[in-house]
Amino acid sequence: MLKLVIANKAYSSWSLRPWILMRALDIPFAEDLIPLDTPEFRPRVSAYKAGSTVPILVDGDVTVWESLAIMDYLADRFPEKQVWPADIKARAFARTISAEMHAGFRGLRAACPMNLRKRYEARDRGELVSRDATRVTELWRRAREGYGAQAGGPFLFGAFTAADAMYAPVVTRFHSYGIEVDASLRPYMDAMLNHPAFVEWQEAAMRETWIVAHDEADEPVIGPFR
Amino acid sequence: MLKLVIANKAYSSWSLRPWILMRALDIPFAEDLIPLDTPEFRPRVSAYKAGSTVPILVDGDVTVWESLAIMDYLADRFPEKQVWPADIKARAFARTISAEMHAGFRGLRAACPMNLRKRYEARDRGELVSRDATRVTELWRRAREGYGAQAGGPFLFGAFTAADAMYAPVVTRFHSYGIEVDASLRPYMDAMLNHPAFVEWQEAAMRETWIVAHDEADEPVIGPFR
Ligand SMILES: N[C@@H](CCC(=O)N[C@@H](CS)C(=O)NCC(=O)O)C(=O)O
Ligand SMILES: N[C@@H](CCC(=O)N[C@@H](CS)C(=O)NCC(=O)O)C(=O)O
Repeated sequence: MLKLVIANKAYSSWSLRPWILMRALDIPFAEDLIPLDTPEFRPRVSAYKAGSTVPILVDGDVTVWESLAIMDYLADRFPEKQVWPADIKARAFARTISAEMHAGFRGLRAACPMNLRKRYEARDRGELVSRDATRVTELWRRAREGYGAQAGGPFLFGAFTAADAMYAPVVTRFHSYGIEVDASLRPYMDAMLNHPAFVEWQEAAMRETWIVAHDEADEPVIGPFR
Repeated sequence: MLKLVIANKAYSSWSLRPWILMRALDIPFAEDLIPLDTPEFRPRVSAYKAGSTVPILVDGDVTVWESLAIMDYLADRFPEKQVWPADIKARAFARTISAEMHAGFRGLRAACPMNLRKRYEARDRGELVSRDATRVTELWRRAREGYGAQAGGPFLFGAFTAADAMYAPVVTRFHSYGIEVDASLRPYMDAMLNHPAFVEWQEAAMRETWIVAHDEADEPVIGPFR
């Protein structure tokens, strides 16, 4: 059976990406959770002989890391699962926005660490965050209008694909930090936040007891994540 | 015909990646070069309705940006070209190290901007650079020992693939900044630096007259790049 190595569900945005994809597409896997910021993190990650980060996917003698490479491996390994949209043009756009996520949006990522237990008060979070949020929503709108709406289904390209998995932790950041999106994108956000795979992950996050201080914003909390 | 939008050959490491891949694999394309740090850069890039960066690939009504997504699009569009290694396990490793490059090695990238006109004196470039260089060479060694050596051919997986394209500007940085690699990787570096596609790009870089000041290190130059 495949094994996915991840970190804390409350905080590890990169871990969430392949995990939610595999659950959403019904690809069975076992899980090895290594808690961030603990003495065991480094040695347990090193033992996989991958990189210094999670997620890591192990499939027999194949070890893949980097979230995007894991998704492409799943696409190769399970061609019937539609990891990427079937149409070449839709697929190109899905891969483009996924690659933009993989290397980008550092302003948003740094200022608003993923936290699946809390909602903070909305506030101005500065120029870099608002620029990234504007760009993200432009890409979502182009995906929905160009592909998702016609395909049917509430996700970026209709059905849930790797592009949605890549943006799952951006949806959660917008939700946690009170960053508004325009009304046309609300159904997309809701579809993600209510997807059974996401609900399962988020509920597990609520049950975790580890606290990673630098991922906890020193700001008024208006309530639990959900 | 495909069109690839790039920036200055002397400096634009991301542009080099898909360009060298397409040349190495004999995929014909036209080129639109937009010089960095000039008033025309932003408006000409914006006109493509992609992102704010180059490279951008235009293929009829398909526009793809982000170097890694361009490579995956080429793999879809030209399945006969072996953009990625044919074997699923080799391909997984090629994609993993390409994704690691796409988002990583920021220490090396910031301290040693690509410059294809000059060689600088070797010197200690600090902890972040040496950590990145160690990691890069570890990945190259794993590719060569696990796949390239058996496959025949001097590149990471034998023949030239997208993984080599992703690391081409790292080979050039090691060369420009006098960063030593161990002897077993010298043939790989030489194969890249002498590849006809790379030679063509680098000679064009020599003929460019634009100067981008922040990509010119204020350090003793020991000679031209080649
Ligand atoms: N580019 C990587 C990023 C992975 C990453 O940064 N993972 C974090 C957890 S969300 C991690 O392992 N951090 C531990 C560390 O850097 O020491 C990917 O796509 O998988
Ligand atoms: N992640 C992008 C990076 C592209 C990038 O940063 N390109 C540079 C030139 S090497 C650029 O267009 N810079 C102009 C700018 O950022 O304004 C990719 O893979 O294509």
